[in-house]
Amino acid sequence: MNILVLNGPNLNLLGTREPAIYGTTTLADIEAACAAHAARLGLAVTCAQSNHEGALIDHLHAARGAMAGVVLNAGAYTHTSVALRDAITATELPVVELHLSNTHARESFRHVSLIAPVCLGVIQGFGARGYGLALEALHGHLTGAPLPT
Amino acid sequence: MNILVLNGPNLNLLGTREPAIYGTTTLADIEAACAAHAARLGLAVTCAQSNHEGALIDHLHAARGAMAGVVLNAGAYTHTSVALRDAITATELPVVELHLSNTHARESFRHVSLIAPVCLGVIQGFGARGYGLALEALHGHLTGAPLPT
Amino acid sequence: MNILVLNGPNLNLLGTREPAIYGTTTLADIEAACAAHAARLGLAVTCAQSNHEGALIDHLHAARGAMAGVVLNAGAYTHTSVALRDAITATELPVVELHLSNTHARESFRHVSLIAPVCLGVIQGFGARGYGLALEALHGHLTGAPLPT
Amino acid sequence: MNILVLNGPNLNLLGTREPAIYGTTTLADIEAACAAHAARLGLAVTCAQSNHEGALIDHLHAARGAMAGVVLNAGAYTHTSVALRDAITATELPVVELHLSNTHARESFRHVSLIAPVCLGVIQGFGARGYGLALEALHGHLTGAPLPT
Amino acid sequence: MNILVLNGPNLNLLGTREPAIYGTTTLADIEAACAAHAARLGLAVTCAQSNHEGALIDHLHAARGAMAGVVLNAGAYTHTSVALRDAITATELPVVELHLSNTHARESFRHVSLIAPVCLGVIQGFGARGYGLALEALHGHLTGAPLPT
Amino acid sequence: MNILVLNGPNLNLLGTREPAIYGTTTLADIEAACAAHAARLGLAVTCAQSNHEGALIDHLHAARGAMAGVVLNAGAYTHTSVALRDAITATELPVVELHLSNTHARESFRHVSLIAPVCLGVIQGFGARGYGLALEALHGHLTGAPLPT
Amino acid sequence: MNILVLNGPNLNLLGTREPAIYGTTTLADIEAACAAHAARLGLAVTCAQSNHEGALIDHLHAARGAMAGVVLNAGAYTHTSVALRDAITATELPVVELHLSNTHARESFRHVSLIAPVCLGVIQGFGARGYGLALEALHGHLTGAPLPT
Amino acid sequence: MNILVLNGPNLNLLGTREPAIYGTTTLADIEAACAAHAARLGLAVTCAQSNHEGALIDHLHAARGAMAGVVLNAGAYTHTSVALRDAITATELPVVELHLSNTHARESFRHVSLIAPVCLGVIQGFGARGYGLALEALHGHLTGAPLPT
Amino acid sequence: MNILVLNGPNLNLLGTREPAIYGTTTLADIEAACAAHAARLGLAVTCAQSNHEGALIDHLHAARGAMAGVVLNAGAYTHTSVALRDAITATELPVVELHLSNTHARESFRHVSLIAPVCLGVIQGFGARGYGLALEALHGHLTGAPLPT
Amino acid sequence: MNILVLNGPNLNLLGTREPAIYGTTTLADIEAACAAHAARLGLAVTCAQSNHEGALIDHLHAARGAMAGVVLNAGAYTHTSVALRDAITATELPVVELHLSNTHARESFRHVSLIAPVCLGVIQGFGARGYGLALEALHGHLTGAPLPT
Amino acid sequence: MNILVLNGPNLNLLGTREPAIYGTTTLADIEAACAAHAARLGLAVTCAQSNHEGALIDHLHAARGAMAGVVLNAGAYTHTSVALRDAITATELPVVELHLSNTHARESFRHVSLIAPVCLGVIQGFGARGYGLALEALHGHLTGAPLPT
Amino acid sequence: MNILVLNGPNLNLLGTREPAIYGTTTLADIEAACAAHAARLGLAVTCAQSNHEGALIDHLHAARGAMAGVVLNAGAYTHTSVALRDAITATELPVVELHLSNTHARESFRHVSLIAPVCLGVIQGFGARGYGLALEALHGHLTGAPLPT
Repeated sequence: MNILVLNGPNLNLLGTREPAIYGTTTLADIEAACAAHAARLGLAVTCAQSNHEGALIDHLHAARGAMAGVVLNAGAYTHTSVALRDAITATELPVVELHLSNTHARESFRHVSLIAPVCLGVIQGFGARGYGLALEALHGHLTGAPLPT
Repeated sequence: MNILVLNGPNLNLLGTREPAIYGTTTLADIEAACAAHAARLGLAVTCAQSNHEGALIDHLHAARGAMAGVVLNAGAYTHTSVALRDAITATELPVVELHLSNTHARESFRHVSLIAPVCLGVIQGFGARGYGLALEALHGHLTGAPLPT
Repeated sequence: MNILVLNGPNLNLLGTREPAIYGTTTLADIEAACAAHAARLGLAVTCAQSNHEGALIDHLHAARGAMAGVVLNAGAYTHTSVALRDAITATELPVVELHLSNTHARESFRHVSLIAPVCLGVIQGFGARGYGLALEALHGHLTGAPLPT
Repeated sequence: MNILVLNGPNLNLLGTREPAIYGTTTLADIEAACAAHAARLGLAVTCAQSNHEGALIDHLHAARGAMAGVVLNAGAYTHTSVALRDAITATELPVVELHLSNTHARESFRHVSLIAPVCLGVIQGFGARGYGLALEALHGHLTGAPLPT
Repeated sequence: MNILVLNGPNLNLLGTREPAIYGTTTLADIEAACAAHAARLGLAVTCAQSNHEGALIDHLHAARGAMAGVVLNAGAYTHTSVALRDAITATELPVVELHLSNTHARESFRHVSLIAPVCLGVIQGFGARGYGLALEALHGHLTGAPLPT
Repeated sequence: MNILVLNGPNLNLLGTREPAIYGTTTLADIEAACAAHAARLGLAVTCAQSNHEGALIDHLHAARGAMAGVVLNAGAYTHTSVALRDAITATELPVVELHLSNTHARESFRHVSLIAPVCLGVIQGFGARGYGLALEALHGHLTGAPLPT
Repeated sequence: MNILVLNGPNLNLLGTREPAIYGTTTLADIEAACAAHAARLGLAVTCAQSNHEGALIDHLHAARGAMAGVVLNAGAYTHTSVALRDAITATELPVVELHLSNTHARESFRHVSLIAPVCLGVIQGFGARGYGLALEALHGHLTGAPLPT
Repeated sequence: MNILVLNGPNLNLLGTREPAIYGTTTLADIEAACAAHAARLGLAVTCAQSNHEGALIDHLHAARGAMAGVVLNAGAYTHTSVALRDAITATELPVVELHLSNTHARESFRHVSLIAPVCLGVIQGFGARGYGLALEALHGHLTGAPLPT
Repeated sequence: MNILVLNGPNLNLLGTREPAIYGTTTLADIEAACAAHAARLGLAVTCAQSNHEGALIDHLHAARGAMAGVVLNAGAYTHTSVALRDAITATELPVVELHLSNTHARESFRHVSLIAPVCLGVIQGFGARGYGLALEALHGHLTGAPLPT
Repeated sequence: MNILVLNGPNLNLLGTREPAIYGTTTLADIEAACAAHAARLGLAVTCAQSNHEGALIDHLHAARGAMAGVVLNAGAYTHTSVALRDAITATELPVVELHLSNTHARESFRHVSLIAPVCLGVIQGFGARGYGLALEALHGHLTGAPLPT
Repeated sequence: MNILVLNGPNLNLLGTREPAIYGTTTLADIEAACAAHAARLGLAVTCAQSNHEGALIDHLHAARGAMAGVVLNAGAYTHTSVALRDAITATELPVVELHLSNTHARESFRHVSLIAPVCLGVIQGFGARGYGLALEALHGHLTGAPLPT
Repeated sequence: MNILVLNGPNLNLLGTREPAIYGTTTLADIEAACAAHAARLGLAVTCAQSNHEGALIDHLHAARGAMAGVVLNAGAYTHTSVALRDAITATELPVVELHLSNTHARESFRHVSLIAPVCLGVIQGFGARGYGLALEALHGHLTGAPLPT
């Protein structure tokens, strides 16, 4: 089972941008840790990042039929993109919305997510560790265990 | 390290109420699974549930100094209780906000969380498995690993 | 068939509080009249009152499976309690929302009912006589007559 | 004592339109049952229906001085007609607002009633049986019994 | 020069309805006084009243080309009728919006006028005397004097 | 197959009123062109117009069972009439909402349509030619061709 | 009987500023015409103008007990000054709110009047002639004639 | 004359919780100082605290007829409890709303008080000293001196 | 005369995505039918699709001077893109806004179109047949016939 | 230590204006009582009043460095003046916002205070006695006692 | 060519008030630098400041015909004064709105400018240097160079 | 010191699009004038334009560490792009927001800037000359002169 780990705008700067909020871990660090963590769960990951809304949509389209689920950190497009929302619906895949920071503790325009209603669930506020939790959440969903194991 | 797993109004009915949304797992099942899962992480859990807003506040007050963190499913009080928010702040503990369902896919009054801004993070939409993820999130936060492990 | 007649905050003061709005009839008078009126309809009533939101939820939980319907005057919690709404849904019973006064003729924050969407119907503005109408409404609903009889 | 039973737009189609919401009872059935039910209460009824806002106002004007009360199902004009509201006030009669369905469980624009603040009270959600309850509510109001009898 | 004096819903009840707000003068009194006042100004008046929004529109259509101006007390339709607004525009005549009471001192839904933006001006709060002021306002507008005379 | 072409308030003035917005074509011209255009499509049309909201509702009621579809230019009632919306639903017919002008390019209160959610679709901004497009849209819908033909 | 004719900010520029909206008549012209018109009605006028909100309040205070009524064109302070509203209330005099233009046909922030609810009535949209109408309105109010004379 | 000093949710933690906002004085310190200060004014105090909305209502009910006034720090329930508002009204006593901090300088949801409209007055922003001011305010109100003494 | 048929985000998935809403016709089917339909009208079409907002803007820029009109299904960008709106204005071409579904019958955020005010008109709710209607609407606009032909 | 007691618009009329709300005490009475009360506390007062927003700002500027604190009853400017707010901040002094009436029990536009967020605290609803409470609040603040004394 | 440099409320305190936001430069320093900078551009400046809204209006009136343009830092009146807006319009001069700080980075009530729509343009966020930029902007506007020179 | 001059969507059409608003100067003209103007200030410029939100983000990322500041005309993305806002923050550079027109004098959706709060300042309404002012603003900021020079 292959999982798409898809990161959106400005996340390519992770580890250098506003470390007080996002920490010093780079995106490459996270992608490597995701691959290792997924392997332990019996999953594979494909990683991608783009600052372009359209490119993120293209990545989601490509995941249809090819992937078993998506971990999506849509960054700022979370709050503004109906097109991304429609692309998520179109994948017909379980998508976990992820944020490094707790967006509810930041500016009010970050409290609204246009994509959450069409995602499986949301994980936010746990920094880079959240990617591991998201992979586990997808693993649990795909394997169907009713309780924490 | 002891973790308080605190559940709010109507969650005592889990497993019998609206199973299409919440599943058939009972609260006792969840609490037992939490204890087992916590043990695997080297944590202990104390579980409590109440339909009374004031009782939930009392439980949070009791956790100050005695617990290392809280997993809180505040149910409907999530959307209406400033008093609970102040009690979370008063604990000076990391609190993970948890929901069984993805509240963003339900009625609009469930899209606003008064407590999220003072919690460490949010996990929602993964059913009873979310409790396990929340315990792992707290474990990661308390042990400080920067990446998924 | 047993009906729960459940009254919420401040209704214990009926007959003494703001008589210009609520009249001089006491809650005990109303409960006695409900019992008599129910008997004429072939119903029995169980009466309860509490100023505690949590206690009202507990009463509703207890009614599941044990009662055939509920007459609920939720008082001020009508306008603020999502938890009570969820408890009503959880009873899987027909619940009649009742108010002594016509809340639409009072302050604007009393015009919104959080519980109405999950109730069978609403009766308000008829003073203590409304309890009798509510019992008849439940009786008609439970016995299924399509027209007034 | 004569009561005007006044029905508004689209209610002439009762029994044929959207039966899942309104049932199969026709307006003629309801008017006949109202007459019978009123007779049992010692009341007489005059029934009228119109799809024209102006005609409903004319009916209310004609009720001034001639009737003892009004049962008014204003249909969709409930939500849009200030003119109807003013006509209700002008009757100086007790008017019971009635709806077959529970409008609070439908679209949000049906949650606001422009006429409720000038009515005696509201009964909604009980289908055609609600007309019988409304007649009883008027009877109780006009005869002044403080408690259900 | 002929002026249409057009009155809307519930104004046929003037002199009997809510005299504390509207006074005891009847609509016939006002229409007679308008005719006399207009004669002093060298104008003629045609008077009409209806509770039907559509009939008011029909009257305005009939005034096109036949009248020199309109005094319009649209009553409650002032606040709800876009159709009346379009009919006013369609007359291509100067229309004076008139209210007996000061609508700004009443309920908030009476503070918005949908028709004011397409009228020549507004006169309100002066009771039946306002009709005389409105006729003078139209006379001044049609004769073009720049200052009070 | 018979189609009702129904026009609302102020549209009787077409060709004389505000030609910069609506053009100089009269309603009679449009109705004649509709009949000719419908004939080419193998359809018949029945045309009606009223300034009365209630009369438009009556026309829609009459179309139930008797017509195959409706082209409805509800004029200003588009923005204010819930009663018309309910009548559309009650017809159980495909109804095409039509406007001569592009209402989105006019005042903001014309941007909201209360009837659009219960119509088959919307055509606006193409002047009198829009009636021909609406007839084709209904023809296509009734004959079920999946693509433009 | 003495009437205060009080003009607010920017009205000293009348006759030079934006003549397309306000005309070429100067404030001195208006004040002279007011004096002449008032004399014909058996009234005297005192005229004042200021661009200072505080000075307008001072003028209103001075009118208490000394004047029989006020014609007030508060200009832009109409839309922003609660202090002026309180000063109007404090005069315990009938105050006529006047505007040269029809404010409802201009920017939306000019549609709200903070002072209208505490004024006797409103006259707007008739240019400088409105001052004459306002004096007549006050004269009618002070002499108490129920109908136009 | 006996005064109820009633404190709401989370105030039991005073002196330990968020000292930067609330200071290090404990609730016991405040209650003792209130007793001493009241004695100097010739008043007695009864002190109570609860985290339960229902318990606060019960305390207010008990104060009816037994107390001469109430100092109420309702904490977070200030912003969410209509039930508490109704209980204040039901006491028919002068109630002083008190807050340690200046709520207007904090989050926007703390700027709205549901209870202020039914209280005698408000004192906030002066820390624990505010309790002394509130007792003096009640003393002045009960003894009726028109000016500071 | 050449017409640009431009489709936006996610429309490349037509025929596979959410067929209950959009049907099983593919975008290639639609583009072929557009070409055939245009040929019957004496028009040529150029077709393009992109998930990238910027690419859609580039396509519109390229149409300036080169095309006679545009059929634009902007998909989700309809609701969020001011940049697309400005690009439409910049084309100085007649643009028909098209949607396969009736957006007014879907989520409320789809009821607002940022581009409609600068388009010639709107056609929505008729599935793939709408493209044919849009081509006819452009043909009629470009050839200037006042009535349906 | 010198305290500025500054009163805003319309407060010069105290004792004559709307006594049902403000009482019969004059501003001179209050200023004299403030001087006496301050003397008992070991403070001196300087009193000023103006109806001019700019003059109030000038008074606050003059207080910088010269006074130890301010008691400010800004009257209606409380709700509308950002300039006054900035002047308060500029004084770098503790300022107590004071109102004679409980503004929360009056019109809704009086519920918002633009100045409260930059004041030390608020005292309102206690009539003229509030000035004495405000002086004590400043005295306590300046002398730093943690509890009521 | 003479330019009015007009500063509003609290700007007389520049250099002493909140230096973290506004710096230590005094208003006299700025006015001197403006004179020098204007001289280099071949312009003269007249400087004025007032805390009185009415006085600022008087200054703008005086500039009509006498000045070639205005640099206006209206301070807090930017956000609340419609009267100032009307005075700007009345000057028929190019007016540059200037702020020392970036108001968009401060409280939300500072994000709305009532005067910007009637100004030539806006310069904000550059501290005292902004006055030089504003003079250059006016110089460029008055001399008409299409590009930076 | 190198400055990035970055232009957003539709600005490539400058000189041809809507010249009444934007003038006839082309983007190439502006970029050449920027280079010349910057040279006079001792600065160098790098110019770029894109219609793609993602490409603008990429340009800003490239400016980190490589440039000393940015002049950004984000066009329509000013009003809709949170992603661009985050990219500005990520540059850790002073960014001047620039608009050719005065956006406050245009449609209301152009009055909100999502990027202004994270920019150094704003310059708008001065056409192409604004680029020169923006370069001077950056030069002054980078060289730190406190006053216009």
